[in-house]
Amino acid sequence: MAEQKATNVTWHDHRVSSADRQKLNGHKVAVLWFTGLSASGKSTVANTVDHKLHAIGKHTYILDGDNIRMGLNKNLGFSADDRTENIRRIGEVAKLFADAGVIALTAFISPYRADRDAVRALFPNGEFHEIYVNASLETCEKRDPKGLYKKARAGELKNFTGIDPNSPYEAPEKAELVLDANNKGIDELADDVIAYLKGKGLLDA
Amino acid sequence: MAEQKATNVTWHDHRVSSADRQKLNGHKVAVLWFTGLSASGKSTVANTVDHKLHAIGKHTYILDGDNIRMGLNKNLGFSADDRTENIRRIGEVAKLFADAGVIALTAFISPYRADRDAVRALFPNGEFHEIYVNASLETCEKRDPKGLYKKARAGELKNFTGIDPNSPYEAPEKAELVLDANNKGIDELADDVIAYLKGKGLLDA
Repeated sequence: MAEQKATNVTWHDHRVSSADRQKLNGHKVAVLWFTGLSASGKSTVANTVDHKLHAIGKHTYILDGDNIRMGLNKNLGFSADDRTENIRRIGEVAKLFADAGVIALTAFISPYRADRDAVRALFPNGEFHEIYVNASLETCEKRDPKGLYKKARAGELKNFTGIDPNSPYEAPEKAELVLDANNKGIDELADDVIAYLKGKGLLDA
Repeated sequence: MAEQKATNVTWHDHRVSSADRQKLNGHKVAVLWFTGLSASGKSTVANTVDHKLHAIGKHTYILDGDNIRMGLNKNLGFSADDRTENIRRIGEVAKLFADAGVIALTAFISPYRADRDAVRALFPNGEFHEIYVNASLETCEKRDPKGLYKKARAGELKNFTGIDPNSPYEAPEKAELVLDANNKGIDELADDVIAYLKGKGLLDA
């Protein structure tokens, strides 16, 4: 993990607390951390969940792999160190959104277990929800909507998760929710997430 | 500015647009970028504005110097390069909050004009509001609530803005709002900000 460099800094207690912000929004906060292989459906499921939550008046925001990489994390590549820093920053931003009273959805491959656990450790119990979008490498490679697997197999893309032996995907062992993305469609998977959130009472005040 | 490292990324259009999120929140989005010397009152004024906006039902969030440095930017120090990266990341996070329909308040010294201008360039016209908390070095050094100026004068703190000749504060030349923090109290300064926001119609749907 990153080392604390700045000294002479102290935590400010803000006048408006996280609880105040949740009260205004009328629901609890949660970080929905979608993880899975490229083309597993993470981003599409997360966007569909986001849409369904917004439609019922919940305050949400989606942090999405490619978009974050064009802004906040544009100075990071795909080496192991850069992947770790990528996930660390996203975790910290998700924490800011949760503090703001917003349900944050993240859709990143986030291949390393240690990185996901480090993000989990940022949050109080019950706030971080690891959602494993479980689609096999075979399923994902068959879909290949952006032709990335083909390029990776041809050696044109280095560090491609699941293909490059140096870039493994470490499947979650203790995900709060596992989605069967080999067999179910997007809408059904999104409904599974909503049902999970309702079951946890997260959508109520 | 940071170079784009990741290739094979494309911008995703989210199913829930920024306009949708603004509609749910019932007000426009804005980034209120407070800049000024250490002890000028940036953080206290920003927190007071945040409190007043929250009290009238606006969806806000405050990004605050020291707090960000203990999380997202904990791996940055106070060298010129690190200060630039610090401000770049905060600008990108403020952009995410604005995209989420939230009024983002930031309270950072942000001493370099070029860094502030680079953040401004991230936003559409009218969304970024540079607010100069104008307190003189004399005023700030007289206040010195954390004893930092004293330490900096004693040579115990390097790179201290306004004291270390290598760490100048470049005052804004085109701030949207200048607050007279030499002469006015916190509450009066916060009301000046609220009046400015109302005048711009930013607090209406």
